[in-house]
Amino acid sequence: MKAIAVERGEDKPVVIEKPRPEPDAGEALVRTLRVGVDGTDHEVIAGGHGGFPEGEDHLVLGHEAVGVVVDPNDTELEEGDVVVPTVRRPPASGTNEYFEKDQPDMAPDGMYAERGIVGAHGFMSEYFTSPSNYLVRIPRSQADLGFLIEPISITEKAREHAYASRSAFDWNPSSALVLGNGSLGLLTLAMLKADDKGYESLYCLGRRDRPDPTIDIMERLGATYVDSRETPVEEIPSAHEGMDFIYEATGFPKHAIQSVQALAPNGVAALLGVPSDWEFEVDAGAFHREMVLHNKALVGSVNSHVKHFEAATVTFTKLPRWFLRDLVTGVYPLSEFEAAFEDDDTTIKTAIEFGTV
Amino acid sequence: MKAIAVERGEDKPVVIEKPRPEPDAGEALVRTLRVGVDGTDHEVIAGGHGGFPEGEDHLVLGHEAVGVVVDPNDTELEEGDVVVPTVRRPPASGTNEYFEKDQPDMAPDGMYAERGIVGAHGFMSEYFTSPSNYLVRIPRSQADLGFLIEPISITEKAREHAYASRSAFDWNPSSALVLGNGSLGLLTLAMLKADDKGYESLYCLGRRDRPDPTIDIMERLGATYVDSRETPVEEIPSAHEGMDFIYEATGFPKHAIQSVQALAPNGVAALLGVPSDWEFEVDAGAFHREMVLHNKALVGSVNSHVKHFEAATVTFTKLPRWFLRDLVTGVYPLSEFEAAFEDDDTTIKTAIEFGTV
Repeated sequence: MKAIAVERGEDKPVVIEKPRPEPDAGEALVRTLRVGVDGTDHEVIAGGHGGFPEGEDHLVLGHEAVGVVVDPNDTELEEGDVVVPTVRRPPASGTNEYFEKDQPDMAPDGMYAERGIVGAHGFMSEYFTSPSNYLVRIPRSQADLGFLIEPISITEKAREHAYASRSAFDWNPSSALVLGNGSLGLLTLAMLKADDKGYESLYCLGRRDRPDPTIDIMERLGATYVDSRETPVEEIPSAHEGMDFIYEATGFPKHAIQSVQALAPNGVAALLGVPSDWEFEVDAGAFHREMVLHNKALVGSVNSHVKHFEAATVTFTKLPRWFLRDLVTGVYPLSEFEAAFEDDDTTIKTAIEFGTV
Repeated sequence: MKAIAVERGEDKPVVIEKPRPEPDAGEALVRTLRVGVDGTDHEVIAGGHGGFPEGEDHLVLGHEAVGVVVDPNDTELEEGDVVVPTVRRPPASGTNEYFEKDQPDMAPDGMYAERGIVGAHGFMSEYFTSPSNYLVRIPRSQADLGFLIEPISITEKAREHAYASRSAFDWNPSSALVLGNGSLGLLTLAMLKADDKGYESLYCLGRRDRPDPTIDIMERLGATYVDSRETPVEEIPSAHEGMDFIYEATGFPKHAIQSVQALAPNGVAALLGVPSDWEFEVDAGAFHREMVLHNKALVGSVNSHVKHFEAATVTFTKLPRWFLRDLVTGVYPLSEFEAAFEDDDTTIKTAIEFGTV
């Protein structure tokens, strides 16, 4: 079968031939439909993030997949089920308490592999296998865009953890800010628009000039565009209003510190970006004092697991069709896979199609 | 009646004469038993923290009080009830949503007065009045040390909020670190020792040489003393272990940033100290990344309200008698009130006695 991989010493994806995998006991065989591309894939390709599986000199890419079960192999799945795989798997050293407790998303570094990212092959191949307990059934109607379930699940987890931090009191947020206008930022903005909390005002921060397709999407969602070149994060309360909820999806490390100044009293910021080391001057006294005197919270979140994928399938139904249509700027056949990895100001979200239902 | 106050332009407490207050409708009249002294009182006296009530040129001190109801004044209280008052009251501008929702501890700056701290007279007087819904009944057996209920309530709230931030997953903390060996730090250490989470290892950070009474208390509680001059906070994981829970009670602003490095994966740090502005170099990239990749949380907490005071009366019964005896290093009659404001290495917690049950 064909697969898209990055090989040792290379910095661009290629199509390779691999044998079709055979499911082990407890695993199902899945025929791949589509696999999304995101920033993590670009980092893996550039060598900044991932790692090859032990003993291998290539890594099959892709962690945002949707497929159809072709061999349930005595699992509880059925042939024809449309499924999305979770990403984390036990590391080469074997399983551990986080997998046994069904929360591998909480496992620390070194206690997991991530398919398509570190230590385990991803899903950009015509077929893949997975233990059935890591395959989440989704409605057949979501098959086309099922590659969005994984990124939506990332926000489901972050939102769950952030909201939990506010659960000790009666919290009624009305304003929210998404830092970052990439596909995850825009998905999150649409999710907050549909959120049960009923946000009255939404904002999304980017650094783009109009006309720009992401600004068009923000505004059609009813959000206000904040140009970070004009309004630094810590000035957002004076320029607009204090934010009850902030979602940081840029990995720009000043945002973690500045977010606390941009929060309204009793607000929470969820951090998801992954920056490199960067030392700079911070008014850590003001940061600390503001956290305390206004009961603020900062919550880091990475990855997601089955319950978040399941929540994502419900959230998916609440996202407007026009939004999904505008968000996905390209779905490419295997023969044009390179186009899916292009990343310019007209690209928001792309996927590679391996097959159809 | 006699009261202990700080007067405009002065920086030390004095005894003044004031008329005994008359309870308004909904208020009870309370005869004061004892009032504790803490770091906030010292800040108020030094002018660094508080503010006089409108139109007055003195502030009666004290926010950690215990008293006995002498005139219930048609409230649900009864004569002889032993009570502890909460601290926040509506500001001079009138009530607001935070008081109406019974969570004034979540009110932002400007939307509350604090008795004995800012905008309202405290409890260091022979009698005081309070709306009865801000008076928490405590067992008569706690009357002597009832002035500890307020500081215990501060940790009840911080602990509640910090634990809430970990409630979205199955969190089983085993290690905890208290930053600060003042009376609040030691109270918190004893509370964590008695915590339902069943911490297996406790640490307390200070900067004292042995022999020292606070180190004796830590060690008798079974905690490990960490000398911050030898082991900076961010080196605690390599010197000891990563911490599942950190309680920051020093107001030293490097601790907010360093705590994230000292946390174990999935840990949470509660921030309670109130530092001034202080700019310095921070590896904000590492801080941000560590928050994200290990699902960490930082939660600020200030003040407390009725439910936390009620929880504190239960927690109080779990604290060892020897601990309470060693913690309270002096209870002084009004004639010796100045001794209660002395603060040296032999002083841990003091109170002023206005009367007995």
